[in-house]
Amino acid sequence: MGFDTHMDVALEEARAAGARGEVPVGAALVLDGAVVARAGNRCRELADATAHAEMLVIRAASRALGRERLDGAALYVTLEPCPMCAAAISAARVARLYYGAADPKSGGVAQGPRIFDHPQCHHVPEVYDGVGASAAAALLEEFFAAKR
Amino acid sequence: MGFDTHMDVALEEARAAGARGEVPVGAALVLDGAVVARAGNRCRELADATAHAEMLVIRAASRALGRERLDGAALYVTLEPCPMCAAAISAARVARLYYGAADPKSGGVAQGPRIFDHPQCHHVPEVYDGVGASAAAALLEEFFAAKR
Repeated sequence: MGFDTHMDVALEEARAAGARGEVPVGAALVLDGAVVARAGNRCRELADATAHAEMLVIRAASRALGRERLDGAALYVTLEPCPMCAAAISAARVARLYYGAADPKSGGVAQGPRIFDHPQCHHVPEVYDGVGASAAAALLEEFFAAKR
Repeated sequence: MGFDTHMDVALEEARAAGARGEVPVGAALVLDGAVVARAGNRCRELADATAHAEMLVIRAASRALGRERLDGAALYVTLEPCPMCAAAISAARVARLYYGAADPKSGGVAQGPRIFDHPQCHHVPEVYDGVGASAAAALLEEFFAAKR
């Protein structure tokens, strides 16, 4: 599977999250070309503010691989990670981060605390933004429009 | 139970974590004077870089209370939270954060990305630092001295 296809997995998870009434954000954790974990946001379902898609795939991948450092892994997520998730991506030593839509309100990579831009950030992934951004943003816009 | 006693619960959890070979950090989540959740760091045991004491008590408390917003809750932790945990504390709407030792290397509250100091931080807890700091720092120093 290639670059686009992995973001398509994340987009599928985002759509499924939206169908469950969750904010539609999805993620996939990929190692050696294989999807090790995939998840959508489950904050409402789990009544857990930390149950963002990125946290769920990092935890699931760690469990599946039996190691806390996901060296060599790529994380695909439809929305710019929040500061919690960006810091988790660093802590888990994810090698590459691909994300879709920017999040001016709650993002933590290109705005706000800019998690990867501090000397205290012990591991900085390669970051690729705007991947599948229009599809990811459309999902979020539809979701919030329907709620209003 | 009072102020000091709750930090003592966190310190007990830190000691237990150290005895399990984990970096000795502990936390307690308190609501209306009662400890709702308590945990020590379990990164090694769970092979999960996100299994910091604060994340574990937030998730356990959310599960116990059945809600993702921990309004009114106080979180006691023996070490300054890292950026991931500080952002999780904000996301979970924890009202008050009491922490022990400062963490110049990996802290995210008073250094590095200073998670609570950005306009994008939608909820800022009251922060009390240095609570039980000497006991918390001694535990960490002993742990790292023994490893060397």
